[in-house]
Amino acid sequence: MNDLLLVKIGGGIIDDPGRLAAFLQDFSRLQGSRMLVHGGGKIATDIGDRLGLKSKYIDGRRVTDDETLQLVVMVYGGLINKDIVARLQAAGCNAIGLTGADGNVIAADRRPVKEVDYGHVGDVISAGVHTGLLQLLLGQGLVPVLAPLTHDGKGGMLNTNADTIAQEVARALADIYAVRLVYCFEKKGVLHDPEDGASVIREIRMQDFERLKAEGTIHSGMIPKLDNAFSAIRAGVKEVIIGQAEDLHGLISGQAGTKIL
Amino acid sequence: MNDLLLVKIGGGIIDDPGRLAAFLQDFSRLQGSRMLVHGGGKIATDIGDRLGLKSKYIDGRRVTDDETLQLVVMVYGGLINKDIVARLQAAGCNAIGLTGADGNVIAADRRPVKEVDYGHVGDVISAGVHTGLLQLLLGQGLVPVLAPLTHDGKGGMLNTNADTIAQEVARALADIYAVRLVYCFEKKGVLHDPEDGASVIREIRMQDFERLKAEGTIHSGMIPKLDNAFSAIRAGVKEVIIGQAEDLHGLISGQAGTKIL
Repeated sequence: MNDLLLVKIGGGIIDDPGRLAAFLQDFSRLQGSRMLVHGGGKIATDIGDRLGLKSKYIDGRRVTDDETLQLVVMVYGGLINKDIVARLQAAGCNAIGLTGADGNVIAADRRPVKEVDYGHVGDVISAGVHTGLLQLLLGQGLVPVLAPLTHDGKGGMLNTNADTIAQEVARALADIYAVRLVYCFEKKGVLHDPEDGASVIREIRMQDFERLKAEGTIHSGMIPKLDNAFSAIRAGVKEVIIGQAEDLHGLISGQAGTKIL
Repeated sequence: MNDLLLVKIGGGIIDDPGRLAAFLQDFSRLQGSRMLVHGGGKIATDIGDRLGLKSKYIDGRRVTDDETLQLVVMVYGGLINKDIVARLQAAGCNAIGLTGADGNVIAADRRPVKEVDYGHVGDVISAGVHTGLLQLLLGQGLVPVLAPLTHDGKGGMLNTNADTIAQEVARALADIYAVRLVYCFEKKGVLHDPEDGASVIREIRMQDFERLKAEGTIHSGMIPKLDNAFSAIRAGVKEVIIGQAEDLHGLISGQAGTKIL
């Protein structure tokens, strides 16, 4: 089984030109089969504000109405995706930008309306990641760069969380590759003490996770991240690593970040 | 040599939802290897206006300053490209959207500043169309959908005319495929009498072109279109057909439009 590295970066780094440039340099120097998944970032909100859109949130989640969908398709699928691709190309990395609609790579269903209508938000359907095109591209040395967008198969684009995209793609490819999934976020890893940025927990196993949750060490935003990570591991992903984009090489070599086993 | 059909659509059809939907249905029903190149349209101007950008024109050409580049990358590479791709997917056509940066498909140089600085506008470099990825995708039955954007290989996207993209790609692929290039525009073809929409000239050969120009039958905007068409023919493109998107099947079967030989 060939190795595949799948790296996810979020809004924090996308919004910071210097950090993004440094990360893309580091990423371009990696060897072997790899993919990048990127999130959104404040730039969508900024452009939305300039367009006079009012961002609507329910329980901390943005509601993707018609105009917001247009906004995220433009900004995630156009501006951010093509900026990353062009810069990777300049660094000698043969990147190709994709949304879930391109080559039908990721099919989703619009999230059903229960108490809340989140609008044009997509949940990846079962067996919705079509790995053939990704394999074809990876086999040619290309580096897919995935925007956090899927499609519904009926002509509509859908907004889908980048962590979810990374996880679903990693799971789907786990039958074909030995997949390592790296989630970059704002801290050096999962911390023992949230006040101490150096207190990185080096490894978390399932049984630790339950204890760390019970103790309150892991809480709020980290819980869904780790749930996702364990779910990926159970689905056959070889390793999930959580840490800071600045430490990319350390995350991969095992010198930095938190490893989920 | 396998056949390849390359269809270019412009802003007129992209700006009209009903016409675009009908065209995409027709296009999705075609058989065999095919590609679509799309232009921009008023939607970029509308969004630019809402963002408070002032479109600047010199001699009828839009100047692509930094903010306009962001706008066209968003709108052409994101909004329009992904809308077309998602709708083709819904119609059973396995489309994949690409800009020139994706897979380094089309490399360009920023147009040199002489009397006028057009800004971030790209002229496709010699041998700048890299056909390998296109061949790979076409060979898998995928349908590339090209946005009118190229890249400079130094990390910058560039705005490039869609007619030029279509022509350059057709020329580059002419060594590998028997390429038919269809330019859709607002009229049924090149007209004998501009006042009579039915007076389509069915065929134009090089010697006719010189005469039609001298007579004034062909003038203004049609001249560069036909110059491009003859240049493609000289480079080995099998046929160039000019006509209306509504007549797509007729254009291909030889029942409609103007054929350039």
